[in-house]
Amino acid sequence: MIRDLIIENKSRRRFYQEIAIERDTLKELVDLARLSASGGNRQALKFMLFNEPEKNALIFQYIALAGSPPEGERPSAYIIILGDTEISPSFGVDHGIAAQSIMLGAVEKGLGGCMVGAVNREGLRQALEVPPRYEILLVLALGKPKEKVVIDAYEGKGETKGWWDDEGIRHVPKRLLKDIIVE
Amino acid sequence: MIRDLIIENKSRRRFYQEIAIERDTLKELVDLARLSASGGNRQALKFMLFNEPEKNALIFQYIALAGSPPEGERPSAYIIILGDTEISPSFGVDHGIAAQSIMLGAVEKGLGGCMVGAVNREGLRQALEVPPRYEILLVLALGKPKEKVVIDAYEGKGETKGWWDDEGIRHVPKRLLKDIIVE
Repeated sequence: MIRDLIIENKSRRRFYQEIAIERDTLKELVDLARLSASGGNRQALKFMLFNEPEKNALIFQYIALAGSPPEGERPSAYIIILGDTEISPSFGVDHGIAAQSIMLGAVEKGLGGCMVGAVNREGLRQALEVPPRYEILLVLALGKPKEKVVIDAYEGKGETKGWWDDEGIRHVPKRLLKDIIVE
Repeated sequence: MIRDLIIENKSRRRFYQEIAIERDTLKELVDLARLSASGGNRQALKFMLFNEPEKNALIFQYIALAGSPPEGERPSAYIIILGDTEISPSFGVDHGIAAQSIMLGAVEKGLGGCMVGAVNREGLRQALEVPPRYEILLVLALGKPKEKVVIDAYEGKGETKGWWDDEGIRHVPKRLLKDIIVE
């Protein structure tokens, strides 16, 4: 059931860093993005794949992951979603659609991760020598999840931000269905 | 397999209009969006649900569906994704993530549809009396699909736009995996 995958697909930020992800696995995930909808079917997204410790360490410096996982619990792979400005000047929500397809595919494979929008884009561009024709849209951090995440009911008071309890379990408050449907 | 759902989830624009979609079904789909990732977990998306012929006819006037399906083959339901500006001034790609979750859920239920960005937003706002606090982000058109869609390999020449052949089968050219991975 897609619902089970969506529930399981909570943002993960702590991983068994020593468990590598094959490049072919990353390609299978990108293929899910390839087959997904794209505004006007322009398909202006491109993808960079990383699964080697040295490059992973480099990329980690330019992204902000809540809770800042220590060495040993960091992502073991990254997919960087680029917008190819030679195909289209703008990308609408294509990268949101693509990212969701990739993350659901990852969860199905027993992996998990986080869509990271808080990226030092200029730093990352220089570090990876990303050509100027590409806009850096999103970074997907991937790995074998180490943390447990639970969904709490958000009743409308206080912050909606996720938090960790004393046992290291991450709590993600979600608004109630009745609160997000406009009658 | 998520891959099967993603492949089946091609944009559909012709439906068995007489087959209604229950409001409870639409709520189940919105619940999938509710449980999906959201930037900073702000959850600023809200949803309006429509499944009655009169309102459907109204909404249809304000959206552009390729091929413009004739009366009898139009969507039997709509989910309008709104951004609540009282929660956040911007919505990132949250509506792309939400839309993909909803569409995959719809496909699993034997339904299908289309994410519509080509919307006369001011017209639709007035017709449905959408309060000014909400930004109209995307319209999801839903129904029981009547058209067959196939994926073609796009080799890099000509347009990427989808087209219908003489037998009414819709062809969607998709770039090849090797062409979207930047080495």
